[in-house]
Amino acid sequence: MSLLVQKFGGTSVATTECIRKVANIVVSAQQSGHKVIAVVSAMSGDTDRLINLAKEINNKVSGRELDALMSTGEQISMALLCMAIAECGAKAISLNASQIEIRTDSTHNKARIQSINDKRIKEELSSGKIVVVPGFQGVDAAGNITTLGRGGSDTSAVALAAALGADECQIFTDVRGVFTTDPRIEDNAKKIDRLTFEEMLEMSSQGSKVLQIRSVEFASKYDIPIRVASTFENNDSGTLISKETTNMEEPIISGIAFNRDEAQLTIRGVQDQPGIASKILGPISAANVEIDMIVQNVGEDGAANFTFTVHRNDYKQAFSLLEESAKQLNASKVGGDDTIVKLSLVGVGMRSHAGIASKMFDLLAKENINIHMISTSEIKISVVIHEQDLDNAVKILHVGFDLGN
Amino acid sequence: MSLLVQKFGGTSVATTECIRKVANIVVSAQQSGHKVIAVVSAMSGDTDRLINLAKEINNKVSGRELDALMSTGEQISMALLCMAIAECGAKAISLNASQIEIRTDSTHNKARIQSINDKRIKEELSSGKIVVVPGFQGVDAAGNITTLGRGGSDTSAVALAAALGADECQIFTDVRGVFTTDPRIEDNAKKIDRLTFEEMLEMSSQGSKVLQIRSVEFASKYDIPIRVASTFENNDSGTLISKETTNMEEPIISGIAFNRDEAQLTIRGVQDQPGIASKILGPISAANVEIDMIVQNVGEDGAANFTFTVHRNDYKQAFSLLEESAKQLNASKVGGDDTIVKLSLVGVGMRSHAGIASKMFDLLAKENINIHMISTSEIKISVVIHEQDLDNAVKILHVGFDLGN
Repeated sequence: MSLLVQKFGGTSVATTECIRKVANIVVSAQQSGHKVIAVVSAMSGDTDRLINLAKEINNKVSGRELDALMSTGEQISMALLCMAIAECGAKAISLNASQIEIRTDSTHNKARIQSINDKRIKEELSSGKIVVVPGFQGVDAAGNITTLGRGGSDTSAVALAAALGADECQIFTDVRGVFTTDPRIEDNAKKIDRLTFEEMLEMSSQGSKVLQIRSVEFASKYDIPIRVASTFENNDSGTLISKETTNMEEPIISGIAFNRDEAQLTIRGVQDQPGIASKILGPISAANVEIDMIVQNVGEDGAANFTFTVHRNDYKQAFSLLEESAKQLNASKVGGDDTIVKLSLVGVGMRSHAGIASKMFDLLAKENINIHMISTSEIKISVVIHEQDLDNAVKILHVGFDLGN
Repeated sequence: MSLLVQKFGGTSVATTECIRKVANIVVSAQQSGHKVIAVVSAMSGDTDRLINLAKEINNKVSGRELDALMSTGEQISMALLCMAIAECGAKAISLNASQIEIRTDSTHNKARIQSINDKRIKEELSSGKIVVVPGFQGVDAAGNITTLGRGGSDTSAVALAAALGADECQIFTDVRGVFTTDPRIEDNAKKIDRLTFEEMLEMSSQGSKVLQIRSVEFASKYDIPIRVASTFENNDSGTLISKETTNMEEPIISGIAFNRDEAQLTIRGVQDQPGIASKILGPISAANVEIDMIVQNVGEDGAANFTFTVHRNDYKQAFSLLEESAKQLNASKVGGDDTIVKLSLVGVGMRSHAGIASKMFDLLAKENINIHMISTSEIKISVVIHEQDLDNAVKILHVGFDLGN
């Protein structure tokens, strides 16, 4: 008998019809002999409805009362799921964040989980009940309601799995699992059966939005296997994300991830000296603009060229900040491009295989796709290319690395 | 400086526009030097939305999870009101039933309040905040969410007022106060300025639905003055309901209440003997049919005639149960009428004034209105008449007892 945490996102509980499907999933898991904790998001659309109400009162609302408001969304789907489970003839009990003490810090709207009291949950599981918990929310030490920020339900699920020593944390969603790349671009995109935490982190951070990054970090830290599967297609075991095992027969490349929301900025002819990077990036970070890739290289005359990427929404702001810095640093030129995208090959297998990068560049070159930036990690190679080239690049690499078979 | 509890019903918080109006009321009460606790119902329509969701899953849903679901309605309006108060430049904090320990018994869907912990509320009031509390809900000793049943927000408000020793519990609603009778029937119906708890109880139980009966009982028990006033008309002091005071200049009759949902049943020719009432009414009560008026009198041959009223929805069921009993009791006849209504004159003044009943019967007789049943209490005279006669009877009595001036 295993202990499973099963998490269902907003589209999985969008209607009472969907909630009945979810009830079938958790009840049949229980009937297969497992203890089950179900974690639910708010019904799809409910969160927006609540935010819009708040905005009608104050367009910039935030803080404690926003959390009190938003937390009702998950509480609604939680109660409805319990009713639907009862309809299936099984026993269920809902326990909200204050009832099971999902303790967080006091950072309203993006709190972090500190501890979970497993006592009540264990009692209810032992008495044969399915325990239904609202995702996304917690309470601080003073009993104030907090929320984890959007997508925080994944984190709730993994944290519960860690606190209770669950055997698996299953994230049910509207896709069958993690794919080698976006099926809307590449018809032959294939569902990946197994991934390591590191690969999933790279896939997530590169724009593959199946799982929230924080939840993957959490799962990796506490070594909780995550399974991503579809709420609507029962006969598919989804994608299992777990610690790397030596006997795991890994493909060299697991998948191709990309992010369309990038923009690139360059400052040229900066005197190369210690501290120059922080002088350039400092004012941009101070303005709360997140910087993604950073590449620095040295030009002919010993002056450095410095290139980095930011979210497209931050492009204009970052550009003017950079022009400011350029004056102070006597840089020769500031440039930028907000029509670029980032594309990444991800796979733990590439650590032990030479030549992946050059094969990638070769494949792109044959299609006349120009590479603006390159950045590599142990298990990932990222390139910045023009957005017009993205679809073609994805297809070429998917075939070239034989991901579709 | 007074401590006020101000309660706002569903129509008063129906939209964010309405919630802004409510914020203005509580903030101006604070600016007038009062400490203010605001109690809110769910936004009008929200309760029905939630019930409909539950019914989509199970048409007869009840119990613990229904309470977890329904309690979200008040939590939404609570958070929105806090935001709106902040917009007015005042400070507010929401505290839900678990945060302030509104302790109830464990009777889900119609729990009763047992105690309220006033500590946190007092702290927040002392720090200059307006405290916003969701009505209708509580938590039991195990921390389970309970609800007080529909209309329970009035009870929450009065209970909070009692626990904190408030000077007044103000119930804001969509009418200006309690009227001498229904203004839709009698144009000259007048708002009543003052009523005793007893009168209000009689008015409520006779169908005047401004306040929930339980909340009036509660207020009477703890001697908390209640003021009923309009959310939308600020320059009206509403109706004050309080303990009877000797120097209160009472009118003889306070108002005319009526209830259209009644049906009458009669069993004739029953042998009059001890225990006969319980033999007749026992099976009906056992079927959970509530009995309202009961009249018994003795016929010529020593056999009793027994008449009582029930809710029209229960008429058919009660009729067949009565036919059953009639056989066993050898009664001569069972009759009934589901086109009758109950009409009551209410007023503490009638205790010290003889002749009110005969004047009432006289006024009705002059209009050829037939009286089916009569029942009296110290401060009330009720008659059962045909529903066709109701409007006319209300007008005649309103003029006859000079209620409109």
